[in-house]
Amino acid sequence: MNLTRNIFRIVTSAALSRTPTHLIKGHPQRTLMDGGISAIKTENSGDEFLKEALVILMQDAVQKGTDRGHKVCEWMEPEKLHEILDLKLQRNGESQEVLLGYCRDIVRFSVKTGHPRFFNQLFSGLDRHALTGRILSETLNTSQYTYEVAPVFVLMEEEVLTTLRHYVGWTAGDGIFCPGGSISNMYAINVARFHRFPHAKEKGLSALPRMTIFTTHESHYSVRKGAAFLGIGTDNIILVQTNDRGKMLPEDLEKKIEKSKSEGAVPFLVSATCGTTVLGAFDPIADIADVCERHGLWLHADAAFGGSALLSSKHRHLLHGIERANSVTWNPHKMLGVGLQCSAFLLPDTTGLLQRCHAANATYLFQTDKFYDLKYDTGDKSIQCGRRVDCLKLWLMWKALGSQGLEKRVDKALEQTRYLVEEMKAREGFCLIMEPEFVNLCFWYVPPSLRDQQDSPDYWQRLGKVAPVIKERMIKKGSMMVGYQPHGDRVNFFRQVLVNPALTKTDLDFFLDEIELLAEDL
Amino acid sequence: MNLTRNIFRIVTSAALSRTPTHLIKGHPQRTLMDGGISAIKTENSGDEFLKEALVILMQDAVQKGTDRGHKVCEWMEPEKLHEILDLKLQRNGESQEVLLGYCRDIVRFSVKTGHPRFFNQLFSGLDRHALTGRILSETLNTSQYTYEVAPVFVLMEEEVLTTLRHYVGWTAGDGIFCPGGSISNMYAINVARFHRFPHAKEKGLSALPRMTIFTTHESHYSVRKGAAFLGIGTDNIILVQTNDRGKMLPEDLEKKIEKSKSEGAVPFLVSATCGTTVLGAFDPIADIADVCERHGLWLHADAAFGGSALLSSKHRHLLHGIERANSVTWNPHKMLGVGLQCSAFLLPDTTGLLQRCHAANATYLFQTDKFYDLKYDTGDKSIQCGRRVDCLKLWLMWKALGSQGLEKRVDKALEQTRYLVEEMKAREGFCLIMEPEFVNLCFWYVPPSLRDQQDSPDYWQRLGKVAPVIKERMIKKGSMMVGYQPHGDRVNFFRQVLVNPALTKTDLDFFLDEIELLAEDL
Repeated sequence: MNLTRNIFRIVTSAALSRTPTHLIKGHPQRTLMDGGISAIKTENSGDEFLKEALVILMQDAVQKGTDRGHKVCEWMEPEKLHEILDLKLQRNGESQEVLLGYCRDIVRFSVKTGHPRFFNQLFSGLDRHALTGRILSETLNTSQYTYEVAPVFVLMEEEVLTTLRHYVGWTAGDGIFCPGGSISNMYAINVARFHRFPHAKEKGLSALPRMTIFTTHESHYSVRKGAAFLGIGTDNIILVQTNDRGKMLPEDLEKKIEKSKSEGAVPFLVSATCGTTVLGAFDPIADIADVCERHGLWLHADAAFGGSALLSSKHRHLLHGIERANSVTWNPHKMLGVGLQCSAFLLPDTTGLLQRCHAANATYLFQTDKFYDLKYDTGDKSIQCGRRVDCLKLWLMWKALGSQGLEKRVDKALEQTRYLVEEMKAREGFCLIMEPEFVNLCFWYVPPSLRDQQDSPDYWQRLGKVAPVIKERMIKKGSMMVGYQPHGDRVNFFRQVLVNPALTKTDLDFFLDEIELLAEDL
Repeated sequence: MNLTRNIFRIVTSAALSRTPTHLIKGHPQRTLMDGGISAIKTENSGDEFLKEALVILMQDAVQKGTDRGHKVCEWMEPEKLHEILDLKLQRNGESQEVLLGYCRDIVRFSVKTGHPRFFNQLFSGLDRHALTGRILSETLNTSQYTYEVAPVFVLMEEEVLTTLRHYVGWTAGDGIFCPGGSISNMYAINVARFHRFPHAKEKGLSALPRMTIFTTHESHYSVRKGAAFLGIGTDNIILVQTNDRGKMLPEDLEKKIEKSKSEGAVPFLVSATCGTTVLGAFDPIADIADVCERHGLWLHADAAFGGSALLSSKHRHLLHGIERANSVTWNPHKMLGVGLQCSAFLLPDTTGLLQRCHAANATYLFQTDKFYDLKYDTGDKSIQCGRRVDCLKLWLMWKALGSQGLEKRVDKALEQTRYLVEEMKAREGFCLIMEPEFVNLCFWYVPPSLRDQQDSPDYWQRLGKVAPVIKERMIKKGSMMVGYQPHGDRVNFFRQVLVNPALTKTDLDFFLDEIELLAEDL
């Protein structure tokens, strides 16, 4: 009943909000900042609309969206939200006022992933320089295939990739930005396969022996998706054992490679992980590289999450040996917070492998009689045709902060993780899954009623039900968001991820207090 | 010499531009539009920077970038541009003034794809509502995998896909937005394969017979890229003959399917095209569907470009029979101009095929004990993990214009193509490759010295060198951009594409005059 009335109020206020009162011309609300957007002469109503929408964006999404005084999310049941948002597309267009109201509602009911208390994914935060780069990319709206249509971005992508490769430890090489880490990991599978069997491109896999991929059960699910998509088959992924911290055991890798060979398959790729999704584990790359070299396997390092630790002289040891990999996935949209998507696929190869593996030489795009050097038409390295500009946001943020600034962010995230670990140890109810080595802090919260009940036969079953309840409560309250999952034999536990550069000690204390508060009656 | 001096001037002016004079506080330049961005109180320098960058964006990228009084591009040799842009990433960060100067230079040297005289790709224009949607998506920066983190966009994506399916002719079905048409076409290959051999996902192709795909040489190169990437092999693409307009011949398709079967292969997919990249040809879907039904093949319609004609009651006949396809690719980022990327993969299937084909059921993301209906967690249909929000820009533009407004845009583009055809016929030197049926207008420009020389033995060789020269001149002048290519037996010809909704008759006359002017001494 209450809910229904609440909904009614929301609908009403949403409808009212479609006359954005603060935008009325001549409104006295001003600051010292003159000569901004309002000073721009606009010639058409589209520009006028865009300007007004930018005001909503700045106020509601950027400022309130990152303000601790506002909620992380405003929960609404799907059916109710559908009703409120008036999503249906119609024959006639709407007025600018109604459209601005939609913009306001979209922001209102969207999760504020830039909020300091959004801990739900491997990304969080709203870096203003990166955002500027993203908005510029959107406005310039070009495709990263030829120098002709993307002169600035072809050069910029190469510069950014060169810098990322430098941090991997390579003075030369190749690379490309891909639509997310999953697809970067699929590039690794394809390039490794092409490297082993160049005629796979033309002949396909039905002409080849069964090929096998080695990874652990801690690795990202894109290895499975990739094996399926690329025709390798998920049964041909061989899971290598891990130690109790989730790190690949090189001895078991070697054993499994030999076994697979003895069964008539062709082992061709090891996909090791630097910073696993749940535990934040780093596979021992150097030892794995030894095994790969002995057996002639391609070593891919999925450093989508952990790659950013390479920027820290203090923590880059976590990826010790990564320069021995044949390819690397590194997603600056995760820990560096440049915004979805920004995923680099990097390799030390200087023989044009990426180009040969993927090129289709379309004559309508990659003409061979252009008046400039064709090496600048880099698009045929990609499996895509139109490809978004993903380099500018990272480039601009890097220019703003410098490598030094980025290094500080990484160091701070790891320090904050340590702080949170110590605080958890000092409080009752927080039970660490393990000491973290990165910024993933995995823990059970044992609510008052379950403390000292570990010998009870249904203890684990009951504990497994705690995280979902706390999660539901925090979302409905909108105070923060953090992920949980079951994992192997372990029942549901929280995974706290500390990557938002705006985080303060107060936010971490708030996090602990809030978990306690949300679970005090459990 | 002159060039060197020019470069020097540019470097100097670029350096100077890093103190953006019009942004100095209290500058008197104002209009009646108060209460805009300048009225926003900012609490940190990041917001201040963002605001100032938005001003550059509005003035330089949005307004000048679409203004006929400004150039489409400002050509610079790659090496020179690299020098000017100061791309190198350093240890220390730069001041806000320097960063704003970068933003200005990035806009300056980028191609203005929103400009009415940008005809170079299958996209052009800068719709302000779509741009607003894109900027909002970037700011909210979420991933389209779960209702939990993308409540608004999960619902919105479904609504937009439902509407697109409605125009295809399906009252129910499934779908997803993909990172570009190439990847959408790869989804088609994977889903078709999974439909035929569900155990392909686990077993891989080495356990399957050789499978063949049927398409024409006019189809997009992503079919080739996809066949290679998915392990089918490019040799297993069988090219079906076309008529002289580039349309697939269904009789030849049937013959080739039978031949492939007789050779022991398993034909499983026909990839037909609705609006080919160069000629704008539409394969006869209804007739192809008959053949597919007879032989049990999956019919994919790559309507990446031509799909938008479905919005026009006058022109949707071009895709007659598309409702009989098993899957459709449709890129609203092309003719509808919503901005890269926006590519829908659609299918009439209601059995959850897409989900079963791609799902990996990651427990850290798709928990099964959530407090809301899990059908709203749609991300496991994708081969990606993090997936950008591509629906909002289309949704907002659609809300602004209504289907009626979109239909008008499509109709106008086809009318303008007819106008240009008639004008070309009335002028000397313009030689149509064929009467267009869509918005691709392919023609040779025969410059004065080559007219009436058709019997000369080197005529075609010389004509083939004309387009690259005109193209170089137009880019260096910055007056417009249009693509050219050789195609089959035909030497280089221009492909004019009329999709920018801002185009006027004057732009089309300008286009013709400019070609004549650029080639008058040839």
